[in-house]
Amino acid sequence: MNRPSVSLIVLAAGQGTRMNSDLPKVLHPLGAAPLLHHAMRAGQSLEPERMVVVAGHGAEQVAKAARAFDETVDVVVQAEQLGTAHAVAQAAPLLADAPGDAVVLYGDTPFIRPETLDRMLEARERHAIVVLGFQAADPGRYGRLVTRGEDLERIIEWKDATDQERAITLCNSGVICAEALMLFALVSEVGNDNAAGEYYLTDIIELARTRGLSAGVVICDESETLGVNTRAQLADAEAEFQRRARAAALEDGVTLTAPETVFFALDTYLGRDAIVGPNVVFGPGVTVESGAEIRAFCHLEGCHISRGATVGPFARLRPGAELAEDVHVGNFVEIKNSVLDEGVKVGHLTYLGDAHVGEQTNIGAGTVTCNYDGVSKHRTTIGAHAFIGSDTMLVAPVTVGARAMTASGSVITGEVPAEALAVARAKQVNKPGLATRLIERFRAEKAAKKETN
Amino acid sequence: MNRPSVSLIVLAAGQGTRMNSDLPKVLHPLGAAPLLHHAMRAGQSLEPERMVVVAGHGAEQVAKAARAFDETVDVVVQAEQLGTAHAVAQAAPLLADAPGDAVVLYGDTPFIRPETLDRMLEARERHAIVVLGFQAADPGRYGRLVTRGEDLERIIEWKDATDQERAITLCNSGVICAEALMLFALVSEVGNDNAAGEYYLTDIIELARTRGLSAGVVICDESETLGVNTRAQLADAEAEFQRRARAAALEDGVTLTAPETVFFALDTYLGRDAIVGPNVVFGPGVTVESGAEIRAFCHLEGCHISRGATVGPFARLRPGAELAEDVHVGNFVEIKNSVLDEGVKVGHLTYLGDAHVGEQTNIGAGTVTCNYDGVSKHRTTIGAHAFIGSDTMLVAPVTVGARAMTASGSVITGEVPAEALAVARAKQVNKPGLATRLIERFRAEKAAKKETN
Amino acid sequence: MNRPSVSLIVLAAGQGTRMNSDLPKVLHPLGAAPLLHHAMRAGQSLEPERMVVVAGHGAEQVAKAARAFDETVDVVVQAEQLGTAHAVAQAAPLLADAPGDAVVLYGDTPFIRPETLDRMLEARERHAIVVLGFQAADPGRYGRLVTRGEDLERIIEWKDATDQERAITLCNSGVICAEALMLFALVSEVGNDNAAGEYYLTDIIELARTRGLSAGVVICDESETLGVNTRAQLADAEAEFQRRARAAALEDGVTLTAPETVFFALDTYLGRDAIVGPNVVFGPGVTVESGAEIRAFCHLEGCHISRGATVGPFARLRPGAELAEDVHVGNFVEIKNSVLDEGVKVGHLTYLGDAHVGEQTNIGAGTVTCNYDGVSKHRTTIGAHAFIGSDTMLVAPVTVGARAMTASGSVITGEVPAEALAVARAKQVNKPGLATRLIERFRAEKAAKKETN
Repeated sequence: MNRPSVSLIVLAAGQGTRMNSDLPKVLHPLGAAPLLHHAMRAGQSLEPERMVVVAGHGAEQVAKAARAFDETVDVVVQAEQLGTAHAVAQAAPLLADAPGDAVVLYGDTPFIRPETLDRMLEARERHAIVVLGFQAADPGRYGRLVTRGEDLERIIEWKDATDQERAITLCNSGVICAEALMLFALVSEVGNDNAAGEYYLTDIIELARTRGLSAGVVICDESETLGVNTRAQLADAEAEFQRRARAAALEDGVTLTAPETVFFALDTYLGRDAIVGPNVVFGPGVTVESGAEIRAFCHLEGCHISRGATVGPFARLRPGAELAEDVHVGNFVEIKNSVLDEGVKVGHLTYLGDAHVGEQTNIGAGTVTCNYDGVSKHRTTIGAHAFIGSDTMLVAPVTVGARAMTASGSVITGEVPAEALAVARAKQVNKPGLATRLIERFRAEKAAKKETN
Repeated sequence: MNRPSVSLIVLAAGQGTRMNSDLPKVLHPLGAAPLLHHAMRAGQSLEPERMVVVAGHGAEQVAKAARAFDETVDVVVQAEQLGTAHAVAQAAPLLADAPGDAVVLYGDTPFIRPETLDRMLEARERHAIVVLGFQAADPGRYGRLVTRGEDLERIIEWKDATDQERAITLCNSGVICAEALMLFALVSEVGNDNAAGEYYLTDIIELARTRGLSAGVVICDESETLGVNTRAQLADAEAEFQRRARAAALEDGVTLTAPETVFFALDTYLGRDAIVGPNVVFGPGVTVESGAEIRAFCHLEGCHISRGATVGPFARLRPGAELAEDVHVGNFVEIKNSVLDEGVKVGHLTYLGDAHVGEQTNIGAGTVTCNYDGVSKHRTTIGAHAFIGSDTMLVAPVTVGARAMTASGSVITGEVPAEALAVARAKQVNKPGLATRLIERFRAEKAAKKETN
Repeated sequence: MNRPSVSLIVLAAGQGTRMNSDLPKVLHPLGAAPLLHHAMRAGQSLEPERMVVVAGHGAEQVAKAARAFDETVDVVVQAEQLGTAHAVAQAAPLLADAPGDAVVLYGDTPFIRPETLDRMLEARERHAIVVLGFQAADPGRYGRLVTRGEDLERIIEWKDATDQERAITLCNSGVICAEALMLFALVSEVGNDNAAGEYYLTDIIELARTRGLSAGVVICDESETLGVNTRAQLADAEAEFQRRARAAALEDGVTLTAPETVFFALDTYLGRDAIVGPNVVFGPGVTVESGAEIRAFCHLEGCHISRGATVGPFARLRPGAELAEDVHVGNFVEIKNSVLDEGVKVGHLTYLGDAHVGEQTNIGAGTVTCNYDGVSKHRTTIGAHAFIGSDTMLVAPVTVGARAMTASGSVITGEVPAEALAVARAKQVNKPGLATRLIERFRAEKAAKKETN
């Protein structure tokens, strides 16, 4: 298909009063990303020329979140929320010179599929305006679509519908596609002569047809139109998102021992035959290569795990953790902003932050990169084939050379040359019988204290 | 409503043979509290003058648990379990001088709602005895309530019921409300001339009506009458408890990313816009203020988390952990019986027990308060704006002054004055080439050993 | 029943293309064991004389897994997968001298119950061949069993069935039992004159009946015949496995606070009144005695936990961890290949590997057994009633005597005699005002750096 260029308008101005929250509705998280990103991501699949987000409540935060997803996005502020037509109208000045189609999406409707939007654009070849509808299991108070074949005759709001019309189960999702300039022309004619005093986008269908323009309907699955108005609905949406993500991972050949306990983010990537144990949480920005293993109880964000690497149980990888092939990160280990080269082992109770570790190096239990001096962060560099003894403190900035060792319990404040052993500890002294005498003293002190009280 | 005073009788004597456990049934946990506490809590909403728990099996443990909930409660022991009427009779001596009504609740029936009990007391204005009934989806072998309007004519045990009576779906929950002295008078007349040789509380309805006293029915939802007789039913009850707690939290404006993975206790309090990640377990006594964040994989008991504080992932807060505003407790950190003032950061791999930390102080990774000397526990006090280097051992009792620092890897056994730097570590010495020689030696030893074997 | 001897044939040659995996299908994990082990375990309940596993794809890995379950098992390789009859034929040479019955099981069908196999053997007293069938809720394309009473007339493949035959809901599970030598004789006569060009085991029924041999049907629950062909089906099977394991544990008197969050392995053993909190993962080889407690967020493999012991939250027990009575293992603690005698306490942030700890000994927070020198692993031995101070490094091989102590922060490289106190640390020195001067310098350096950039 030689598609005309497309612009997107994403409506994201609502407060979401029923969320009972200070956070704007479209910024509540779904799949570890703001709700808004889901609609933007669906829209981006159309490779739009322009994307305009219409913000309102919490406009500054919404704009920031929109630009975090795509810094080229335009944000306009709808100062007063006077209805969906009014919201679309805010985008008009920005798209005045935009050729081709405009698609209107909703920041609180995260599940519209790219394939569905594709079908809408195709239907545009036959209709001036295309509306996305769905067969509702329980139509309730949704607007009804009165159709003849694929032709949309009109959209009737529930409150204005006759009993016969209410019996219609084909409902309006709100998603609309039309030639951009025509859309804005129609929107500018919408009035607010209704009970709520709002400008409704749905009114453009009637305006279009009185001008002899044809409207059509594309039908999608009801699950795609699931919107979020309450926290309970957000929880339902999260459950639906996770269900889809888990099913897709299984389909892609990922081993999920207990899929129902694994939480994906919008952008999680897992390779074929990657293994994921129970109770793993993926934050944003995680890629796991084929054949890597994430054991139970791991928490991962912004990290890359290469083929053959094993992580956990009880590991935390934070943004900037890069694990090369065959790296092992074990239990109660935190890695932040650090590159671990091939075959590095970090088995237990360790914090590595702002570090680079060379290949095949072994990091002992209880090692800490002391990367913060109270004011600034500093880097630690460890060479290949090194051996960091247990409980080594690496006071950054510091460098340990290749094939070097640190004695366990050492505080390393200066460079360790390659192949050297660095020691920074006191000699062991045994004081015969003192343990027994100490315990006796402690017991006596305790008894004395009790008597005093 | 100008309510008469109320006394509660909570029946908690049963062994719960089907639980297959040495623990008395009413002490099995639900929402991290003994089952018994749930009925007591519902009853307490009536602000009763007196509460009497009738214990039997494991009476000593049950009495202890009852008093842990409310130390003013009376416990009587029903030495032999001769039926519900007999159990109620045990409470008579204690309530002999109690004016007003008595309400009979059951220690193994945790979900009766305060509103339901209120309705029963209201119905007492029209009836001498009020019985709580429910429409059973599957009436099975429940006792049936024969009614005329709100009037209760009689309670028929299933085994004595005609087919016509068995067709009744309105069933007896066992919960009863009556004027206290009349209740005991009726109970004393109940006989045990039945197959089980037991004294049934339900018999008082017939006794009352032969004396011209009216009985009435209040109907509640079946889910409120869910009782616990097996571990499978206890697991179902736990699921129901959690479902309600999660829905209530969402309703109150709490952000629960994955509500189905969060476990609440009976007394958990979460403020509006508090954020709770997946896999968080609340033990008893946790309060989280509005806007605080609990990340994934946290385990909290008996602690307070203030506005703006962030906890986890992988954090454990134990009883007495008090986190002021903007405190950060990170991964693999345990806090016990310690107060952390505003802005304190405890990022990684730390144990703080029996400590007080002043505002804005930073605690390095691997820090431990050595609070136990083998005999007694001692306190650690750290001033404001201090910097505790990584892997600092604070051998309590010990004090670190405001704006003081400890060098990483130091064992602090004596006071650190304000603004001082405390160091307790050996100097680093690099031994050139020794790492390589050591590894060679270890390899040789290993090879030699293999040959020997 | 005086049962004849039995041999087992477990078909495990398929690739499992639809699994989208490099791992052979029967090696995918279910209940922390290869799928294959489940069928082997069910079969083993018959106390078979011989067990033959027919491997094909990934034969070497499959053979290894089969022998890991039972080293006496025979493995034959079916080089080409030419159908189920062909697979059974591969076992013939090995069982040529096997008297009695042969039972054919499937490596990808994990839920056949021992009781069901018993019933098949009993039915063998009345029939030459016994086939296991099930009433299918949705028969789909399963083979249908045409029966008269318990007699099996024939098995019809779905594609060859008439509409009338397709209306049959009694379906073929594939599991077959017959006298071994007769089975192989019949199998050798099966042809491959069908669309797929495969040798079907089901064809033996017709061959048998034309020889006047009777065939019978034993019916089991459909859930027992659940097979695994896709990862989604494997996830369903895991859910079913866990559902059964959880229900069985509750039935056995185990306290599971949140059963739906506990993951069992095929061989997990939990005693009566053992307590298991939410989010506990059992790997293979775990036994927990009556009255022990496993708190939330624990990961256990190959370990034994005795009566009165408490573990977690956030504990990891690895293979070889043996906890005697009343041991306490607390948070962020890893135990590997170590025996902890009665009453040992390991409260926090510790790694014990290759160690033996005597009774009543207390291990301080941050303790590490430095068991690896870069080449070999070494052992640590700690006596009874000892006190290991926080952050003690035990550089193995090393011994700490009974009632000895180590000062916190010490690196112990040599033996500590009984009752002695071992100290290996520097004295604390306070440098007045230096903390403040350092912070000022760090701030100045940071500011300077900013200017330079």
